[in-house]
Amino acid sequence: MKSIITSSYPIHFNTSCYTELNTHLKASNYSKIFVLVDQNTHEHCLPQFLSGLETQIHIEIIEIEAGESNKSIETCSGVWQVLSELEADRKSILINLGGGVITDLGGFVASTFKRGIAYIHVPTTLLGMVDASIGGKTGVDLGHLKNQIGVINTGKMVLIDTSFLTSLPQNQMRSGLAEMLKHGLIFNEAYWNKFTVLETLNLDDLDQLIYESVEIKKSIVEKDPFENNERKTLNYGHTLGHAIESYYLSNSSRITLLHGEAIAIGMILATFISTKLSGFPFNECENIKATILEIFGQTKIQDEDLNPIIDLLKFDKKNEHGNINFVLLEAIGKPKINCLVENNILLDAFKYYNS
Amino acid sequence: MKSIITSSYPIHFNTSCYTELNTHLKASNYSKIFVLVDQNTHEHCLPQFLSGLETQIHIEIIEIEAGESNKSIETCSGVWQVLSELEADRKSILINLGGGVITDLGGFVASTFKRGIAYIHVPTTLLGMVDASIGGKTGVDLGHLKNQIGVINTGKMVLIDTSFLTSLPQNQMRSGLAEMLKHGLIFNEAYWNKFTVLETLNLDDLDQLIYESVEIKKSIVEKDPFENNERKTLNYGHTLGHAIESYYLSNSSRITLLHGEAIAIGMILATFISTKLSGFPFNECENIKATILEIFGQTKIQDEDLNPIIDLLKFDKKNEHGNINFVLLEAIGKPKINCLVENNILLDAFKYYNS
Repeated sequence: MKSIITSSYPIHFNTSCYTELNTHLKASNYSKIFVLVDQNTHEHCLPQFLSGLETQIHIEIIEIEAGESNKSIETCSGVWQVLSELEADRKSILINLGGGVITDLGGFVASTFKRGIAYIHVPTTLLGMVDASIGGKTGVDLGHLKNQIGVINTGKMVLIDTSFLTSLPQNQMRSGLAEMLKHGLIFNEAYWNKFTVLETLNLDDLDQLIYESVEIKKSIVEKDPFENNERKTLNYGHTLGHAIESYYLSNSSRITLLHGEAIAIGMILATFISTKLSGFPFNECENIKATILEIFGQTKIQDEDLNPIIDLLKFDKKNEHGNINFVLLEAIGKPKINCLVENNILLDAFKYYNS
Repeated sequence: MKSIITSSYPIHFNTSCYTELNTHLKASNYSKIFVLVDQNTHEHCLPQFLSGLETQIHIEIIEIEAGESNKSIETCSGVWQVLSELEADRKSILINLGGGVITDLGGFVASTFKRGIAYIHVPTTLLGMVDASIGGKTGVDLGHLKNQIGVINTGKMVLIDTSFLTSLPQNQMRSGLAEMLKHGLIFNEAYWNKFTVLETLNLDDLDQLIYESVEIKKSIVEKDPFENNERKTLNYGHTLGHAIESYYLSNSSRITLLHGEAIAIGMILATFISTKLSGFPFNECENIKATILEIFGQTKIQDEDLNPIIDLLKFDKKNEHGNINFVLLEAIGKPKINCLVENNILLDAFKYYNS
């Protein structure tokens, strides 16, 4: 597949990943290569990745614990400490091999170690490939508040080897699919429609869908890298989605939702709100709800959870001057940013989701 | 005094500080102002600062503990948490009122909170005014390793009100003086010579010396904001100076040296090394040693401390490919970067310092 070249770094796919990486390493003057993994990617992805790598540069592996609860500043401190002990210098490079936790956290660690070293993302989950690894957002959670600490700083390249997906559990695949659906909803009805007719997903189809999702994300980010306007549309479904994810993450008596699973709920809620506030057609909202529920099933959200979830909205990063700014849709492919929503409409949206 | 305008932000002095700040706040759209202080600047500087401030925007004060040992990622976590609890959003601004610890740490906290909010530095120490607050370097220590974690990101403005210096202890004044001496040594012999004839320092003279130091630092940083070449010269005396500072900081049985006190030693060592490796005249080295010792006195460095100090050099941020890169002088105002120094010359330099 043809590489996608953004204004500041290239994204390479499948077979070209390894040739491009090896060429880059040869042309560069890196002192050491550090590969950041978790126990899953250490076992399932690292052997394949290393077998594709051809370099004389010394390689060190750093492993952290898998899971969103480890996407913390404490984990960063551990990685900074290990980099320091292994004598990483400013000419070292960090390769982040894993899902969104590894790439978000690894990107932040690299961007701040000795005031910034180079990094490369090698996403191994669908979510990572179509979303987390594209656009230079790095960061970690603050307690249960998602991505509160971070910087925007792009790496040297992104390498998307879709063969890593064969070892990915089904729920992780679904989690990534949520962001692809979002790309359709906010940007391109034709792309969205490809998912409504999806009965089964084979890997060739998926490769093409991933490629198009990366193109969509890339084109939105390039227009507005620091999220003043267009880039906010990528938060569709995320305002309530993040609050739901944070709430379930912080309540051990509740199930844990993967990021995309929470965003899927958030998108149904945002689409319903759009029918109330931005003229989105209700029948299309019904179709969207059906398509999403078909893939994700329905999570019963308890009445007692609603106010605590709504309370968490005040930590959303898009808020300004005490206002909670939603992204809504006027139509598929026509998003509208900085929309204010009253609490009773939020409650109606949850009622609609649960119905 | 005339403001100094850098390529990305202005530096205002004395009376114009408050008028410029108030004009900026009026023209901006900040949701909240947070002022970061330690217990010293809370007591000695905040009342004066607040009395100069004219704004309708809500102000919150955040206090951290004073001292280099608190320039840590743990302190950042505390400040991020408080910002979050006080509902800081992306339109909030952090004003860092204090010495180098407050401005380095506050700059990092602001640059990473919700992936970056605005900040303004108001340095209250001489070191902060002539060095730490200029040039966008932000960061914290990792354990006892200085400034290992940080980013380069400039604030909205720097406000230098030299009247804050009247409450500054003598050793803190000396600490700042070290960086001013360094500016002379690496950049301008005429500026250096002003210090060799200094018998007493009155505040009017000092204002002018501070202004010239800021101009020197600004002009070096502007040529090379990301420290690939020229900016490295600002590390004169810092390679060994940081190692000495870290070593004394981590050994409770030793005295604690302020940053500038350690850098003063580092500059004598680097100047001696320059006589061995880059043709610096020995008689000038003797004069420099005498001038620095006149101001700072002599710290007896024990033989048993030398190897542990030299071991710490491997963590220096300028290192590349395992090489420890020194800045040396060919003459006053003629620095040379990326110089390698053998251990026996380092040991000779310590012998020279102690003699």
